[in-house]
Amino acid sequence: DHIIICGFGRVGKHVYHQLRDQEKEVKILCVHDDEEELLQFVDKGTLRLIGDPTDHEVLEKARINKAKGLIAAVDNDADNVFITLTAKGINEDLKVAARVEKEGSEEVLLRAGASRVINPSSLGGRELAMSVLKPAGTDYINNLMRADKKDFVVGESTLESGSPLLGKSLEDSHLRRDYGFTLLAIMRGEEVISNPDLDVCFEEGDTLLVVGDDDCIRDLNERVGGRTPEMEEQKINQNPEWGS
Amino acid sequence: DHIIICGFGRVGKHVYHQLRDQEKEVKILCVHDDEEELLQFVDKGTLRLIGDPTDHEVLEKARINKAKGLIAAVDNDADNVFITLTAKGINEDLKVAARVEKEGSEEVLLRAGASRVINPSSLGGRELAMSVLKPAGTDYINNLMRADKKDFVVGESTLESGSPLLGKSLEDSHLRRDYGFTLLAIMRGEEVISNPDLDVCFEEGDTLLVVGDDDCIRDLNERVGGRTPEMEEQKINQNPEWGS
Ligand SMILES: [Ca+2]
Ligand SMILES: [Ca+2]
Repeated sequence: DHIIICGFGRVGKHVYHQLRDQEKEVKILCVHDDEEELLQFVDKGTLRLIGDPTDHEVLEKARINKAKGLIAAVDNDADNVFITLTAKGINEDLKVAARVEKEGSEEVLLRAGASRVINPSSLGGRELAMSVLKPAGTDYINNLMRADKKDFVVGESTLESGSPLLGKSLEDSHLRRDYGFTLLAIMRGEEVISNPDLDVCFEEGDTLLVVGDDDCIRDLNERVGGRTPEMEEQKINQNPEWGS
Repeated sequence: DHIIICGFGRVGKHVYHQLRDQEKEVKILCVHDDEEELLQFVDKGTLRLIGDPTDHEVLEKARINKAKGLIAAVDNDADNVFITLTAKGINEDLKVAARVEKEGSEEVLLRAGASRVINPSSLGGRELAMSVLKPAGTDYINNLMRADKKDFVVGESTLESGSPLLGKSLEDSHLRRDYGFTLLAIMRGEEVISNPDLDVCFEEGDTLLVVGDDDCIRDLNERVGGRTPEMEEQKINQNPEWGS
């Protein structure tokens, strides 16, 4: 149930900091060939694997078959393609996010099995443009994604069979009044219902994407997801602790 | 009323594409020392200034005193500091967004007068981490910022004296039902009221940050901003056309 970071350059270091700051519970395993650099930048509690992440044997040691996700953040597109293909070969269900530098490589990484491809230069360019065109919106959206901002954070919850919202319309659910959050979108299967109509009715399996303060997001799953304590326990038991 | 892009490397090119795709009306001026590169990547309608953007005389030719904003996107932090200082020296009110590579340079650029500093590696790392931790939320937020996605876009509108919302509470405004958009936040002076309470009342000068489809965002200013046609005309007249 760990997340593997391959590559520890400028982008990989930021991936590490974000994971560590956003989610205290997550287990991180850093794979990098420079031991000194890892020791310098990584907390003592973090798992380290010294070796070349494009080496199949190194990746096997990273326990990819048990991992929750892998982030290919090496500063070479071909290496990230290789890592993605290798990792998906070991664990077909693994979620892989990959860094890309050249525009043409995005398609290749998606075909290799990455579920998400991120181009830092493109993101940076977009943010620079937007911060001149729509300064308030850009500020707001940036804050949504920041770990240290507790007034408003994005939360996700999937409605299980016990959810009090099932069968109710958005209008009758009074989400803002009774739960304190604003609904941004409903993910229903492959469909994204953004800015949903007031007469939309919630269904089992819907994933709600909401924004609210820290408190109301923290118990989102218990309050609207309808997840029972038994289910939570089962989920925990499915994730044996990593013996480090 | 133009936007100046300084530097046309990997990030600068993305800035250019975003500006061009997001806002058809905006006038773009690219400042770069490699004429061939500019000719290759820039549309015929775009203004070009061949020269080193860290040269004071070059920047003066960019008509900074008439510009709406400047984006310092050179791939060298010291150069971007120099550009920012120079530009703010010519036009104190200019909005400057700057690219940064090294973590320590962010503060320096802010002190130089940049209103926003963007670190592409940090953004990329954050997105990679979030796409594993909160995949649905990351998708959604990314789509908000994309130019080609018309189902839901972010809009901003400042409430003028004629706005029908003035003095009404959020609960009584029925924004979703009557206007079709979802309110994300209210910017009131320096304050950001995110996920506002239902009893908050709208005041003149409030900037509303909303999300909705293309259509409802397009006439946001007319419908809720309370801007009169006379004011729109005045605004246009304040922005004389760039004679290219
Ligand atoms: Ca566990
Ligand atoms: Ca004009």
